[in-house]
Amino acid sequence: MTALLARLLAHRSTERFILVLILINAAVLGLETEPAIVARWGGVLQAIDTFALAVFVLELAAKIFVQRLRFVRDPWNLFDFVVVGIALLPASGPLAVLRALRVLRVLRLVTVVPSLRRVVGALLGALPGMGSIVLLLGLIFYVGAVMATKLYGPTFPEWFGDVPASLYTLFQVMTLESWSMGIVRPVMEVHPQSWLFFVPFILATSFTALNLFIGVVVSAMQSEIDAERKKTVEDAVSHAEEPLVSEVRALREQVALLASRLER
Amino acid sequence: MTALLARLLAHRSTERFILVLILINAAVLGLETEPAIVARWGGVLQAIDTFALAVFVLELAAKIFVQRLRFVRDPWNLFDFVVVGIALLPASGPLAVLRALRVLRVLRLVTVVPSLRRVVGALLGALPGMGSIVLLLGLIFYVGAVMATKLYGPTFPEWFGDVPASLYTLFQVMTLESWSMGIVRPVMEVHPQSWLFFVPFILATSFTALNLFIGVVVSAMQSEIDAERKKTVEDAVSHAEEPLVSEVRALREQVALLASRLER
Amino acid sequence: MTALLARLLAHRSTERFILVLILINAAVLGLETEPAIVARWGGVLQAIDTFALAVFVLELAAKIFVQRLRFVRDPWNLFDFVVVGIALLPASGPLAVLRALRVLRVLRLVTVVPSLRRVVGALLGALPGMGSIVLLLGLIFYVGAVMATKLYGPTFPEWFGDVPASLYTLFQVMTLESWSMGIVRPVMEVHPQSWLFFVPFILATSFTALNLFIGVVVSAMQSEIDAERKKTVEDAVSHAEEPLVSEVRALREQVALLASRLER
Amino acid sequence: MTALLARLLAHRSTERFILVLILINAAVLGLETEPAIVARWGGVLQAIDTFALAVFVLELAAKIFVQRLRFVRDPWNLFDFVVVGIALLPASGPLAVLRALRVLRVLRLVTVVPSLRRVVGALLGALPGMGSIVLLLGLIFYVGAVMATKLYGPTFPEWFGDVPASLYTLFQVMTLESWSMGIVRPVMEVHPQSWLFFVPFILATSFTALNLFIGVVVSAMQSEIDAERKKTVEDAVSHAEEPLVSEVRALREQVALLASRLER
Repeated sequence: MTALLARLLAHRSTERFILVLILINAAVLGLETEPAIVARWGGVLQAIDTFALAVFVLELAAKIFVQRLRFVRDPWNLFDFVVVGIALLPASGPLAVLRALRVLRVLRLVTVVPSLRRVVGALLGALPGMGSIVLLLGLIFYVGAVMATKLYGPTFPEWFGDVPASLYTLFQVMTLESWSMGIVRPVMEVHPQSWLFFVPFILATSFTALNLFIGVVVSAMQSEIDAERKKTVEDAVSHAEEPLVSEVRALREQVALLASRLER
Repeated sequence: MTALLARLLAHRSTERFILVLILINAAVLGLETEPAIVARWGGVLQAIDTFALAVFVLELAAKIFVQRLRFVRDPWNLFDFVVVGIALLPASGPLAVLRALRVLRVLRLVTVVPSLRRVVGALLGALPGMGSIVLLLGLIFYVGAVMATKLYGPTFPEWFGDVPASLYTLFQVMTLESWSMGIVRPVMEVHPQSWLFFVPFILATSFTALNLFIGVVVSAMQSEIDAERKKTVEDAVSHAEEPLVSEVRALREQVALLASRLER
Repeated sequence: MTALLARLLAHRSTERFILVLILINAAVLGLETEPAIVARWGGVLQAIDTFALAVFVLELAAKIFVQRLRFVRDPWNLFDFVVVGIALLPASGPLAVLRALRVLRVLRLVTVVPSLRRVVGALLGALPGMGSIVLLLGLIFYVGAVMATKLYGPTFPEWFGDVPASLYTLFQVMTLESWSMGIVRPVMEVHPQSWLFFVPFILATSFTALNLFIGVVVSAMQSEIDAERKKTVEDAVSHAEEPLVSEVRALREQVALLASRLER
Repeated sequence: MTALLARLLAHRSTERFILVLILINAAVLGLETEPAIVARWGGVLQAIDTFALAVFVLELAAKIFVQRLRFVRDPWNLFDFVVVGIALLPASGPLAVLRALRVLRVLRLVTVVPSLRRVVGALLGALPGMGSIVLLLGLIFYVGAVMATKLYGPTFPEWFGDVPASLYTLFQVMTLESWSMGIVRPVMEVHPQSWLFFVPFILATSFTALNLFIGVVVSAMQSEIDAERKKTVEDAVSHAEEPLVSEVRALREQVALLASRLER
């Protein structure tokens, strides 16, 4: 029974059926945002959505039944479990926001299409190598936010009222969005020296983020260069061997001939 | 007749004449936007434009006559066909916008100047390799747009009224244009937690777009490195041979001399 | 006594204690920005802060006592000395801003966590190589600021009133923040040709900053490629040796055998 | 006389004197923008400025006298000639703007400091390789500007009134400054489909500019990689030779010994 279910789950037709169902479900979720369409086809859309959800739940249940403890070891399974599970939670009252999160189900496309899975895996794989720089960036943000709250909180409560507000404003400043006309020029009218805080902050975060970027490029190329290196070595060896080895072999034959003549 | 036409089309004077005509046509199309110039020289400009168009149509007709079915296989030919053909469509009433599209004819410069053709070919050649990441970016945008429409559509219909409006607004947010002061801060006044949607969206799309960029850089360098690798191998071999091979050759001569002495 | 102190300072438990104290101090400094929390727990927070500061001062005093003149040679020590020392200055009256600078103490995390220390060291290490380009960028900014002050100072005193104001505005223009809608379009209404100043300025600074960036990427990769080069050579040698050297060795054995036969 | 002047011009003291004079002149030109300082020290500043200008004119005259026709072949000389010459033109009436251009004299620092000269030379040296892409970008801008003028000129004369105005607005759109909130959203209120023009324009110019950037990075690294390649080959050869050549040499000695034994 388990083996049969495992084979059914891994069958190409099943995979294709799930893929098509995700795409249809994505379209349905999009159409459900149009009041005119919902007014006319609301029932049909709702039925398709429920059907898709039922299939996804069944598929996950079958996977859990087949893989048992192995199920939780694959992060993609956990991802599927969460995005499908959201739809089963009651989405009324204060949790109405969960209704919007149901759309995350469409991201199952990533777990189903192998090329997307590889790309996302590669993207996430680049993250651990950046640990230290992300930590440094976080440290600069925290120190900057506490300082900005102390310095500009009393005069600009909307932007720097508390540490979270300052963190958000500094994130905006780092992305350079309206940093001068929107934030720093108004602040400078009250604190004329505040550019001494913001300009170094922009330079420091840009420079750090730039190095984050360089780190990713270099590590991405390292594997590329590594592969190239191997090829270079193999090619160099195989090419270099040709004339030299044949030369040495000819020499050995000559010596062997010489030896055989001496034997006589 | 066909062979004569083919030779005429490929002749350097013809190519140069077409090139000059495109440049003149470009200038004329630019001058036609100046009411003062049109008032005085409108007839002349119109005449030049019609003449250029007639030549382009004749050139294309000759090409189709010469190349027949091969014509449709070259994408540059189809490009020329479309941008010249636009000018022959009636551009009145609801299709008045086609009159503006006539300027696209100037892009024929790309098909005529070989160096531009190579550059555009290289640019378009980089696209297929990015397929998966572009698909991933599209998926993030679609899921984000449906979520934003559900969450913020009722309160901010101008920005998130339907999925296309949300897609446009999220594109603006990804380019970081007025994302905070223009969009997110107003939204946060109604939905205080909305930064939980927008900040991760900015990080995810920036990170994915960054990887798109890295992919292009790495693939652009791969061919570069590949070419270098070949050279390295060739150089290494030719350099390595010099001392070693001559050494081994000298040894062979020595052995040959030894053998000849033993023969005696 | 000195040796005992040196061992105590370098002990893992001491290092861990200092690290935890910095983290607690960071949290306390953040909480001190919340009036509600300060009203209730102000005394406790103050006590923890004073305790942490006392420990840091003692640690630095011990380090100075142990290392004496060597202390000033390590730039990390000087950094610690400055960020801890700020807290000991009187922060009243016109120096009230120093109270905010006390948060810089949290940056001691960089001196304590080795991986952060390495990252910051690498970031600062990339700076000297950029000396010439930074100098060039500074020269472009200075010349641009003097010109802008002379040209637009009288009509737009808020943006170009004096050289420092122009420098700040040009920095904003270089980051592309509101450069056109906020600055250049209003200026163009008075000086219609001013785009002749701003557009080349944007192109020149972007191009120079781009080259700054490329320089950092290339130098970051140079060390990477250098390491790869070494590996390539070693691999090539070890791989190339295998077939060839064994071939030549076999040949030598053959000749040795031949010689021994001749001996007989 | 000419030889003496040539030696005087190339003397280290002369070069250092000119360098210091440029720096003093730069400071003076900056101070001249401060009305308070000009009111008090205007005469002194004017005198220093005139003295510096006189020295620069004399230096250039001496260079022309010494190098004669060779003078015009060095582009740095022509640059010096222009930036010094500007100060000698009458700067009154409609040419008052020339007074501001006098500050360009400070850029002579680039011709005098060798490291700056190298950096600027390298920056300009990267330009020719980008010829085709810059031409393509120019073509996209021209076609875009003519189309925008035809489509949106009548309704938004301030932004798209004529081709130069459209070129400026499209440049602003390419830098992403207020492209949506400032330009495209207002335009979309009149022409709802205009995003079909602007979004592809942003994607096309960003993608082309990105490739411009990649081209510069790759060509910058090519020379780097090229140099590395040479080193790799040399190292590989010198390393590879060691064991192999010594092996083959030992073999030759063995054969020579064998031959000498046979001689006996």
